[in-house]
Amino acid sequence: MSLDSKKFLLQEKDIPTAWYNVTVDMPNKPRPMLHPGTKQPLKAEDLYPIFAEELANQELNMTDRFIEIPEEVREMYKIYRPTPLVRARGLEKALDTPAHIYFKNESVSPVGSHKLNSAIAQAYYCKKQGITNITTETGAGQWGAALSLAAKHFGLELAVYMVKVSYHQKPYRRSIMQTYGAEVIASPSMSTKAGRKIITEHPNYQGSLGTAISEAVELAMSTPNCRYTLGSVLNHVSLHQTVIGQEAKKQMEMAGEYPDIVIGCFGGGSNFSGISFPFLQGKFDGSRAATRFIAAEPQSCPKLTRGVFQYDFGDEAGYTPLIPMRTLGHNFAPANIHAGGLRYHGAGAIVSQLLEDKIIEAVDIPQLETFAAATLFAQSEGIIPAPESSHAIAATIREAKACKESGESKVILFNLSGHGLIDMAAYDQYIAGDLSNYEVTQDSIDNNIDTLEKIIK
Amino acid sequence: MSLDSKKFLLQEKDIPTAWYNVTVDMPNKPRPMLHPGTKQPLKAEDLYPIFAEELANQELNMTDRFIEIPEEVREMYKIYRPTPLVRARGLEKALDTPAHIYFKNESVSPVGSHKLNSAIAQAYYCKKQGITNITTETGAGQWGAALSLAAKHFGLELAVYMVKVSYHQKPYRRSIMQTYGAEVIASPSMSTKAGRKIITEHPNYQGSLGTAISEAVELAMSTPNCRYTLGSVLNHVSLHQTVIGQEAKKQMEMAGEYPDIVIGCFGGGSNFSGISFPFLQGKFDGSRAATRFIAAEPQSCPKLTRGVFQYDFGDEAGYTPLIPMRTLGHNFAPANIHAGGLRYHGAGAIVSQLLEDKIIEAVDIPQLETFAAATLFAQSEGIIPAPESSHAIAATIREAKACKESGESKVILFNLSGHGLIDMAAYDQYIAGDLSNYEVTQDSIDNNIDTLEKIIK
Repeated sequence: MSLDSKKFLLQEKDIPTAWYNVTVDMPNKPRPMLHPGTKQPLKAEDLYPIFAEELANQELNMTDRFIEIPEEVREMYKIYRPTPLVRARGLEKALDTPAHIYFKNESVSPVGSHKLNSAIAQAYYCKKQGITNITTETGAGQWGAALSLAAKHFGLELAVYMVKVSYHQKPYRRSIMQTYGAEVIASPSMSTKAGRKIITEHPNYQGSLGTAISEAVELAMSTPNCRYTLGSVLNHVSLHQTVIGQEAKKQMEMAGEYPDIVIGCFGGGSNFSGISFPFLQGKFDGSRAATRFIAAEPQSCPKLTRGVFQYDFGDEAGYTPLIPMRTLGHNFAPANIHAGGLRYHGAGAIVSQLLEDKIIEAVDIPQLETFAAATLFAQSEGIIPAPESSHAIAATIREAKACKESGESKVILFNLSGHGLIDMAAYDQYIAGDLSNYEVTQDSIDNNIDTLEKIIK
Repeated sequence: MSLDSKKFLLQEKDIPTAWYNVTVDMPNKPRPMLHPGTKQPLKAEDLYPIFAEELANQELNMTDRFIEIPEEVREMYKIYRPTPLVRARGLEKALDTPAHIYFKNESVSPVGSHKLNSAIAQAYYCKKQGITNITTETGAGQWGAALSLAAKHFGLELAVYMVKVSYHQKPYRRSIMQTYGAEVIASPSMSTKAGRKIITEHPNYQGSLGTAISEAVELAMSTPNCRYTLGSVLNHVSLHQTVIGQEAKKQMEMAGEYPDIVIGCFGGGSNFSGISFPFLQGKFDGSRAATRFIAAEPQSCPKLTRGVFQYDFGDEAGYTPLIPMRTLGHNFAPANIHAGGLRYHGAGAIVSQLLEDKIIEAVDIPQLETFAAATLFAQSEGIIPAPESSHAIAATIREAKACKESGESKVILFNLSGHGLIDMAAYDQYIAGDLSNYEVTQDSIDNNIDTLEKIIK
């Protein structure tokens, strides 16, 4: 590999053969999920009615450091994996920074994001168990598009509840799911009790991931031979996403560097976990103790920077088990930002514990800063990033500017979780000056969490 | 490379170092362009007011078999090159064919198509000459998006005339160009004499590539230190695109096969030339004489299958030199199909000569067949193809089905020139049953060509 290379490319044989289970190495394990009635820790069997059994087992597995990737899953990974690692020389130059900026380019997946890494695994395990129908929720549609392709590949029927604001903001992602053969329903909808209730109470409610999850879980529970699947938050989703960081580790070696800072945008945790967990190994074993890990969330949905750490429901209606979360409360209604994939009230159990233990950090980014960062990235690196990924870019730019101030040549690695070609309406609004930031008052957070405590306790 | 690999990947060092100039090896050279006034063959100097000098020189170069790719161009190619070659096992299985189907995946470029291969070169040579402003036309917006990125990279101002029907069908491609910093004008427009004339005569005319070229040429000719650039048709554009076929040759070697059939969709010729010219070497030197080359054009714009071979203008208003073309006449108004990049009346001089000499073949494909092929490809290979590229897929499927009939295991290679993520509105219409075919009557072709002969002679 010559020194002037921009891209560090692996071959198909380098696709990881196992997922990395970070819980095995954590100093404090994530707390268990609780049954909402008994408040007792859940067993895997308790999850079997909702998830494929193998996925439920993975969810609670804290003993196997590596879990083998089935051959059928690796075979489908070959459609787009391994993905490139790119030295962002154009962005470095535009920022005039001494920092070395790298990004892992998950946008090369045919559905445009990293979500396929877990979609393939989840569809595979459902099929293997003889399940015929699956359901899910989707925000901006990245997860829904990925699962639609995986479901078609493995011959499963799929119904997707798509958050209403994104259903209207991003009609092309709906078309993508339909082209792959999935059924797509705007959420909240009249097709479920959870949907009907919230539509009745708030007729103009534009939906949230929490509400869409409630609808998808309800449909799965009331449909024969059907299971629910989730694109983020849960431990087994983070597990599948570790193919990102494992590849990136090999590629950083090819580049002859090791990251001082690892950055991912943050909704429920899937892409942040994917890029950072494999690098956390070096923090846990002390060989790379100084590496910092930064989760970049929207200013308008600040669970990591301003939420509380306690048990909460994963969905708006309260159908799920209680999850130990950094949360704004499951009834938190996020503003209609274009980063639909980050409009979620809580963080998964693993990331919440890591934040509690100060092993990782978090920053919140205003919407306008994300689009300014996205435009600079598009013009300097060529790729138009997804609004979600643009949070990671904005956080990277902050660190790169700090390097310019201090004169340090830090190595920064971020995950480009997806491209924004389906989000051009958002760019249109940004160019026209029609976008704004959304600040959340502390009162609204406090009130929501107070209400939450009464419900849970 | 193991036998079960789907993708055949090269490293950055394998990006070609020179473009292949097919004219050197052609048994009959393409005829020269003529000055429309004197009817004398053009010299490169005659083109200097329109094109950057180096590009004009390349246009007329029929002596250098290989032309070195400048280091600055190769460096920018590294953003997305080398691109993967993929064995389409999913499509083979879906068709139950003994054929081996491969596609070169140019859709991985950040602008979503092969157009960047020439955009980078053209912007580079303009910049090198000290030109500050450039203009161009674009159909579906693939070329315009590519040039917008290349212009930004090299610090040029760019104005793009986008065919009106595509401007409205594909608003996101307009947004992409604007995000990269270009100015975009719907064509026909009131900003040029050519545009005003056609708007006055046909107030509802939805534009064509021929009209958009007239407007872009007119703006370039009337603006100081400005040149025009073109995304297809011309010899130098085909030259730049040969990086596609050169890489594919190496990758077919990795796969241990050689194509019996090479297929590209056809608008003006840029991607068909790119994939096929390097493989034509084997036809010219006799080592691979049996290989077939198929250009797949829309049924509604059938210049190769139903046009005539004669001198014609490259644009609707008659500003360009006379080009030896397989043509439907420069006033031909193509139907509003979604494959906007193929809505052009003529074929470039090289391809026209190759067709005349029966070295290549052509087929025409109805719109509905292209979308059926596209949907099957999306569901079996994961990638949603551009409507243009879907013509190549449809032609491939015809050949693969013929293999099933005959029991032959032919090796078919096609160029996936771009993805269709910006074309989802077209897929929506297809799913809803709102698309149709457009047949062209022989009378309308004959009348148009008759008129043409009177104008030219």
